[in-house]
Amino acid sequence: MIERIAILGTGLLGTSVGLALRGAGFRGSIVGWNRGAAGAETALKAGAIDSIASDPLQAALEAQVVALAVPIYSTLDYMDKLSTVLGPDHLVTDVGSTKGEITAAAGRLFNTPERAAFLPGHPMAGKERGGAALGDAELFRGAVWLFTDDASWQRSAHSAELVKGWRELVVAMGSKTLDLDAQRHDELVAWVSHLPQFVATALSALLQDEVGDAPELRDIGGRALREMTRLGSSPYSMWRDIALTNTEAVQAALFALEQRLANLRENLRTPGLRDEFEQANRFRRE
Amino acid sequence: MIERIAILGTGLLGTSVGLALRGAGFRGSIVGWNRGAAGAETALKAGAIDSIASDPLQAALEAQVVALAVPIYSTLDYMDKLSTVLGPDHLVTDVGSTKGEITAAAGRLFNTPERAAFLPGHPMAGKERGGAALGDAELFRGAVWLFTDDASWQRSAHSAELVKGWRELVVAMGSKTLDLDAQRHDELVAWVSHLPQFVATALSALLQDEVGDAPELRDIGGRALREMTRLGSSPYSMWRDIALTNTEAVQAALFALEQRLANLRENLRTPGLRDEFEQANRFRRE
Repeated sequence: MIERIAILGTGLLGTSVGLALRGAGFRGSIVGWNRGAAGAETALKAGAIDSIASDPLQAALEAQVVALAVPIYSTLDYMDKLSTVLGPDHLVTDVGSTKGEITAAAGRLFNTPERAAFLPGHPMAGKERGGAALGDAELFRGAVWLFTDDASWQRSAHSAELVKGWRELVVAMGSKTLDLDAQRHDELVAWVSHLPQFVATALSALLQDEVGDAPELRDIGGRALREMTRLGSSPYSMWRDIALTNTEAVQAALFALEQRLANLRENLRTPGLRDEFEQANRFRRE
Repeated sequence: MIERIAILGTGLLGTSVGLALRGAGFRGSIVGWNRGAAGAETALKAGAIDSIASDPLQAALEAQVVALAVPIYSTLDYMDKLSTVLGPDHLVTDVGSTKGEITAAAGRLFNTPERAAFLPGHPMAGKERGGAALGDAELFRGAVWLFTDDASWQRSAHSAELVKGWRELVVAMGSKTLDLDAQRHDELVAWVSHLPQFVATALSALLQDEVGDAPELRDIGGRALREMTRLGSSPYSMWRDIALTNTEAVQAALFALEQRLANLRENLRTPGLRDEFEQANRFRRE
């Protein structure tokens, strides 16, 4: 039923969506648009999109499903613009990492019988570097694709069908879907996604200060150090919007970890260290 | 020149040393001893050792090189015992993760022309779980094997040859060797090895408290979460001795990270976040 998809933003995620759709057997058309022409060309050459749109709003208008794969504030900007040009025959969805503001905008601007549908989405997949060149048809396989849909939204029958169709395509790309309340989503990802990222960033930056002048000595950290700092490569450009749109939950998680580290530091020579290791072991075992 | 090696402690590291020696073409005899009989049997079946000793001191006496692969305080205990029975025809070496106390004991109990040599060693390799069953002939390939040898030590010509021979075997096992002052070693590993471990432990324990009752939700963290908590599986039994013998350096590193996280938390909405990401990017780039 879905035959025309527009991907706005052909970075890592947008390009991977196009490739994964093809991998899942999607035979309709996929048009792409990207702020930088090179990224769109790369996505085209990789086969993630069939053609490059010259105007994103026109491309959206001609598609049934519009997948926004741009940073969060750009997503919010596009939502404003798209809500005025699209109607009940369209579905817009996104891949943004925080869902509170986007879901609120979706309720305000979309999801009435007269308007386009908006399905807020968040595939829990990525790489520590971005860009179309890293696009990967297998990126979403085995990952969880979160939705913060709202059961109270009233959609046209047609756009409700598009929502169903997009969910089926997400499953066909290899993901498990999970529906969450938007606020619960943002609190949860603060713990299991944003906290690990900011810890890796702080740890990497600290180590750059402490041992960065002796690069040969970094080798001695081995696999453990590489893993614990891999996310240190993540770009500010992607995380700025996350920090700005999930500030309180991330602050709470960071503060809790600071307390936890202080407690561990004060218990290096007491049985409290055993308790902490055993609790950590439990997290990994279950 | 080295023909008889005794491995005391056939856990993950001891078993891997035996397997890696065979992988490197060592054709002499390797006798093993382990506190628990099952671990020794596993090492024997895996081909890491040729025979199981009934008495560790007797096995040491009959070997040219004794490799201690036990926790740090056990290593210190064995150093006491071995120093009274071994002489200038023997070399003792170890794989302990902190080197301050072991290197001090090596100077006090070994390394005169009349006594056995002791070469303090630390292969920067391991796994998040221990045990002979995980022994791996390739564990040391590409890893750095640190030594905290002391140029002022006076060894017999024979034991000096054994030191040279052991260093050659370490290289044959695929490791790069690096010599460091013992205090510098302990400071450095506090940053690049112990800090990452304790952060992973604190993060895993915190997440167990926060999301441990919803195991299905942990799946959403994906690869990043798995990597950042993998070391949460590490056993207290191994890290207790490290915490006890490198307390001050680990405390300093933990305190610095606490400060760094607090600073990041206070700058989630300021350009300071950009600076921190850029410094982290530098660590990964160089």
